[in-house]
Amino acid sequence: MAEFELNILGCGSAKATLQHLPSCQVLNVRGRLMMIDCGEGAQLEMRRMRLKCSRLNNIFISHLHGDHCFGLLGLLSTMALNGKGGTVTIHIFKGGAELFGKMLDFFCRERPYELKFNIIDTRKAVIYEDNAITVSTFPVTHRVPCVGFLFKEKPKQRHINPEACRRYDVPIHAMNSLRQGCDYVTPGGIVVPNSELTLDAEPSISYAYCADTKYSTRVIKAVEGVDWLYHEATYGDEKEKIAIQRRHSTARQAAMVAREAGVKRLLLGHFSSRYDGSQLLEQQAQEVFPNAIAVKEGMTFDLNKL
Amino acid sequence: MAEFELNILGCGSAKATLQHLPSCQVLNVRGRLMMIDCGEGAQLEMRRMRLKCSRLNNIFISHLHGDHCFGLLGLLSTMALNGKGGTVTIHIFKGGAELFGKMLDFFCRERPYELKFNIIDTRKAVIYEDNAITVSTFPVTHRVPCVGFLFKEKPKQRHINPEACRRYDVPIHAMNSLRQGCDYVTPGGIVVPNSELTLDAEPSISYAYCADTKYSTRVIKAVEGVDWLYHEATYGDEKEKIAIQRRHSTARQAAMVAREAGVKRLLLGHFSSRYDGSQLLEQQAQEVFPNAIAVKEGMTFDLNKL
Repeated sequence: MAEFELNILGCGSAKATLQHLPSCQVLNVRGRLMMIDCGEGAQLEMRRMRLKCSRLNNIFISHLHGDHCFGLLGLLSTMALNGKGGTVTIHIFKGGAELFGKMLDFFCRERPYELKFNIIDTRKAVIYEDNAITVSTFPVTHRVPCVGFLFKEKPKQRHINPEACRRYDVPIHAMNSLRQGCDYVTPGGIVVPNSELTLDAEPSISYAYCADTKYSTRVIKAVEGVDWLYHEATYGDEKEKIAIQRRHSTARQAAMVAREAGVKRLLLGHFSSRYDGSQLLEQQAQEVFPNAIAVKEGMTFDLNKL
Repeated sequence: MAEFELNILGCGSAKATLQHLPSCQVLNVRGRLMMIDCGEGAQLEMRRMRLKCSRLNNIFISHLHGDHCFGLLGLLSTMALNGKGGTVTIHIFKGGAELFGKMLDFFCRERPYELKFNIIDTRKAVIYEDNAITVSTFPVTHRVPCVGFLFKEKPKQRHINPEACRRYDVPIHAMNSLRQGCDYVTPGGIVVPNSELTLDAEPSISYAYCADTKYSTRVIKAVEGVDWLYHEATYGDEKEKIAIQRRHSTARQAAMVAREAGVKRLLLGHFSSRYDGSQLLEQQAQEVFPNAIAVKEGMTFDLNKL
């Protein structure tokens, strides 16, 4: 089964606590790592979770608040010291590219890897694509320009049905096109439909990351039907007014987004430092959407297992 | 006894490890906190060691390598969120003031405290003074401009000898000038020498911080006779060549500095990530200077207790 794994490195909000680290997640897409937000301490948490920086080539920064990007400097410096090669692309708003570009040119001048900035804005757009996945942005509603990220696996290869292939004497060199969904033509010219020779591929999974945002119908539209939704849940019910004021969400609102959008699983994070534990927030969300989990640093989710 | 306490928040070197955090120390000078270098994670370590940011008003940055200053952004942002008032002064080289100034003006615009930069250079100079302490810079030898910091307690007040004061009927309002070292004149005009009415004050303690530097005779001169010396000890004997090349010191060289300068206590830190534990480095230093300790995150030293 293709690897599509989500690692939670930080799920706190702006104020540092000993309970949570600031926002950071790492997606493992078939061995390639992609970081989503990069709060202070991200590089240490990578180490703690045994995620190899050498495999990290894309970093997606949702918005320019410090708790989502202050870890970039340390992480990128350590990657340089470790001799990482290839390219590292930071997908970030323009102002961030300028500021971090200057800092890194001063503090991390000698880089064995090529550093690229891919400037994003709040429009809906595909910002990354490879053979396994597409990543797109969608606008969310926060105090500063901010986007959500949608990670969508591409259709996976079908599985060979070995028995059926033996029956039709399908040669090895034809297997690849079978996996892609092509029919097989025998030497005698008979067309064997692909469906007779292969089994269905695993479904392609989608994951949407929404932090930071207030409850918003446009977010609901953007994440409609995704398999996994991470939605910020900074506050509990009692702070709904503050949530609106600061353009954040309550756990219950996150669950409403999940329910309205018809997602399969909901992950909650970005917890305010005022909460000692996230059980209450989880409960409030589960009242609306039972399939909700409050995440924690160190957790790993196999996104293929719904 | 006056408080003069050193807290070790980080004593690793540039590469992040799970063993050590990057350079950071906090001096508690009679309840006022002063930070020396500010590696990534400093704010969390402050919290872990129960050091209150509200008492922190001076941050001294020895040089512009990331492992000595990347924690500034998170720390200063959290201090703003916590509503810290007063002034925070960062003593830093010019380039650092410019870069961090820009970052903070973007990421931490609303500051309830006044942020000041005090530009330092590699000359020997007093850069801070209050009623308890003076802080001065001295040049060290690293790959980039870098200074050591010398923290020197001012002379302390003498102690009242209550028995002697009763004998001479010294009134309460005269006590303060006695503590300053003045003689006492009785209503009848007799001069009682201060030494008869008071006991010696505790000695004024000095602490020198030297990171990063190669072994250098000018460092020896600068720290001559200090009570406590923190000297970097990045490498062990076997890496002496690399130490010279990278303008760092071995633990043995740090001990040589301590011995030549006639200091009382030596603290070792800034350990390379290649060492799993610092016992070996401590041993090598102790062969030259027995009163040497390899520090660790979370350690606290009462500098008055030599």
